[in-house]
Amino acid sequence: MSKNPYQKLSSQRVWQTRWMALREDQIKLPDGSQGTYTVIERPGAVWIVPLLSDGQMVLIWNYRYTVGKWLWEVPAGSIVPGISPEEMAHRELSEEIGGTAASLKQISTFYTWPGQCNEIGYIFLAQGVKLGEPHREPTEVMERHVFPAEKALEMARSGKVADGPSALAILMCAPILASKQSD
Amino acid sequence: MSKNPYQKLSSQRVWQTRWMALREDQIKLPDGSQGTYTVIERPGAVWIVPLLSDGQMVLIWNYRYTVGKWLWEVPAGSIVPGISPEEMAHRELSEEIGGTAASLKQISTFYTWPGQCNEIGYIFLAQGVKLGEPHREPTEVMERHVFPAEKALEMARSGKVADGPSALAILMCAPILASKQSD
Repeated sequence: MSKNPYQKLSSQRVWQTRWMALREDQIKLPDGSQGTYTVIERPGAVWIVPLLSDGQMVLIWNYRYTVGKWLWEVPAGSIVPGISPEEMAHRELSEEIGGTAASLKQISTFYTWPGQCNEIGYIFLAQGVKLGEPHREPTEVMERHVFPAEKALEMARSGKVADGPSALAILMCAPILASKQSD
Repeated sequence: MSKNPYQKLSSQRVWQTRWMALREDQIKLPDGSQGTYTVIERPGAVWIVPLLSDGQMVLIWNYRYTVGKWLWEVPAGSIVPGISPEEMAHRELSEEIGGTAASLKQISTFYTWPGQCNEIGYIFLAQGVKLGEPHREPTEVMERHVFPAEKALEMARSGKVADGPSALAILMCAPILASKQSD
């Protein structure tokens, strides 16, 4: 099958907010028919699994206006253009949980929602995190909580961490967490 | 902290496609300031981890126009209004891989992207899947591949399944897959 089976005929940005842009492309499909593909354009985003020196994990209890619920999540945020994913991870740790990390390791990347959105997500494991005062934006309504790593893993495995990318980030770190516990 | 810390002042739908709607709400933040919150409205979606009777897993190699890449994924799709998540899972299995499942079990739910979107995702494990002819839409450009379950799990753990929700779905099924292998 061809490398790129869709042919772009034209492209137009139709909406823009601080956080995303909406692009409508006219495309030709492999069967020859034409259609509109609406793409949500996003900068990348980072998700950070923060471990304290004693191995405990920090989660946030985050109010999500979109779904009208408080969700368990790991610190995360959109990448500011010009800032590297790693630097952004350090910033979000500081802003959301007042954290400074002794080490930061990129675990994986993934596409958040590739059916409609071009966002790439970066998963980091932050180790040796020290907690200070968070520096949150007015839109960020959240609390900081500390759990034994095994408990946080169980919360991800059971679906209690209902934010999908956060659950994925924790589960992707599971092998490292397990190897640390058996040290 | 209050149950709902944001106060909605007004709400307007500003864009609509076949797959989503864009809503702009004027809101009052906890600090008293006002702002605009743009919410992407989506019906729910399903992700299905399909296991053949011999325990092998079916993945799709799916072209994603948004990111211009072929991605490893599990069968998935948006929920058609009025159709239950379970029925939708059966439909997507049939459409995308020509699959009929002897049993379908809901494993978990999650929010795909709750910073901007209200979409809820349902994760299903389909067992005893028999493969026939797929019935794909013209927009669906994909191939069907069969892997040993342990190989598919490894692809999720290593980030090779780069579609985030698909990787999450496979990892959420990992405990069941492990228990089957030790039977």
